[in-house]
Amino acid sequence: MTTGVRRRMGVEERRQQLIGVALELFAQRSPDEVSIDEIAAAAGISRPLVYHYFPGKLSLYEAALKRASEDLASRFAEPHEGPLGTRLLRVMRRYFDFVDDHGPGFAALLRGGPAVGSSTTNALINSVRQKAYEHILSHLEITDPPPRLELLVRSWISLAESTALIWLDGKRIPREELQLQLVHDFAALTAVTAAYDEELKELLRPVLGGEPADGPFGLLVTRLIALAT
Amino acid sequence: MTTGVRRRMGVEERRQQLIGVALELFAQRSPDEVSIDEIAAAAGISRPLVYHYFPGKLSLYEAALKRASEDLASRFAEPHEGPLGTRLLRVMRRYFDFVDDHGPGFAALLRGGPAVGSSTTNALINSVRQKAYEHILSHLEITDPPPRLELLVRSWISLAESTALIWLDGKRIPREELQLQLVHDFAALTAVTAAYDEELKELLRPVLGGEPADGPFGLLVTRLIALAT
Repeated sequence: MTTGVRRRMGVEERRQQLIGVALELFAQRSPDEVSIDEIAAAAGISRPLVYHYFPGKLSLYEAALKRASEDLASRFAEPHEGPLGTRLLRVMRRYFDFVDDHGPGFAALLRGGPAVGSSTTNALINSVRQKAYEHILSHLEITDPPPRLELLVRSWISLAESTALIWLDGKRIPREELQLQLVHDFAALTAVTAAYDEELKELLRPVLGGEPADGPFGLLVTRLIALAT
Repeated sequence: MTTGVRRRMGVEERRQQLIGVALELFAQRSPDEVSIDEIAAAAGISRPLVYHYFPGKLSLYEAALKRASEDLASRFAEPHEGPLGTRLLRVMRRYFDFVDDHGPGFAALLRGGPAVGSSTTNALINSVRQKAYEHILSHLEITDPPPRLELLVRSWISLAESTALIWLDGKRIPREELQLQLVHDFAALTAVTAAYDEELKELLRPVLGGEPADGPFGLLVTRLIALAT
């Protein structure tokens, strides 16, 4: 059994290979359009053998989504050093790297499709959003966020998702612009919330006060004032 | 047949009644948790008779969603008169009226669930978003939006959705605040985009220039300047 040129893969190794193959195909075309036959062919195994490792396309899709979710969440990690705007900009670069690498799969997932209604799929999407939320709070150094701050952070995360999704539809705007714009959007939405909420203003002051005038936050305030006058 | 006290309903009339009953139930609990038996009981007819009008729960759900979508889209209509910020604020009030009236159904739809993956459901959601987008462009008096403006408007619509969705989860912030905040968010995101794009700045200047100092837009600028200095 060990004399063949092609080494026989263990169960887990084969599963991981199939997940990788599926992710590569989902990066080129929507998962709806990728058949088990194609995945089998790309992995160099038979269709029945795919079903031996994954009982159906949904289970392979969910396993692929799980790996992609872990990959994405790992990109949120950022040292707690330096200006906040610069930290967020670095995370945005890695976020768009991911979106760029997984385009059709990312779009199909967030636009809704046959697999999206599954509870596993929804739980994975929500766990990534939750991790993004927790990372941002930890950088803001806030452990017990009031409802308006929670709303601000969670709704900005949704804005980042929809911005990436709209960008994917034709890529008509350079992604570098959108990465920076999302940092500015965060600052702008924070300013709106803080302008009407004294508690939040005080909570965010020590954090935002540390931003340099030529960082993404400082630049925005300068430009906003110029625009308004 | 016509002597009974209860008049017999025509097919279309009965269908409309069932849709209304379903929407009322979906406004109290997630559609996943509402059974055909409950809908039948609330409509005062037998379970098999429900299936006579709707072949399955999904088709009843889709019909209910269609009516709700038309209801929501009709609330976007707003006369092209007066300051833009005030117009948008009135639409936001009607939007939150709708969200408030359809809470669990709205949340279940946008959070994803068993019915959400259907192509009919997705098409209905997208048609409402598209109508919101077209209404906003028509108020901005722009017919051929550059990509950055399209992104701005579409991503703000997604922000409004997620804000409403987060609000529904506990209603911990007065909705009046969020209605106004979304108008301010629109102004802030517009400012971010215009600050980095001369074409858009020129495109939006005649429109935003007409805003009164005490309108929602003018108020925001005043507060932002106070916050930044």
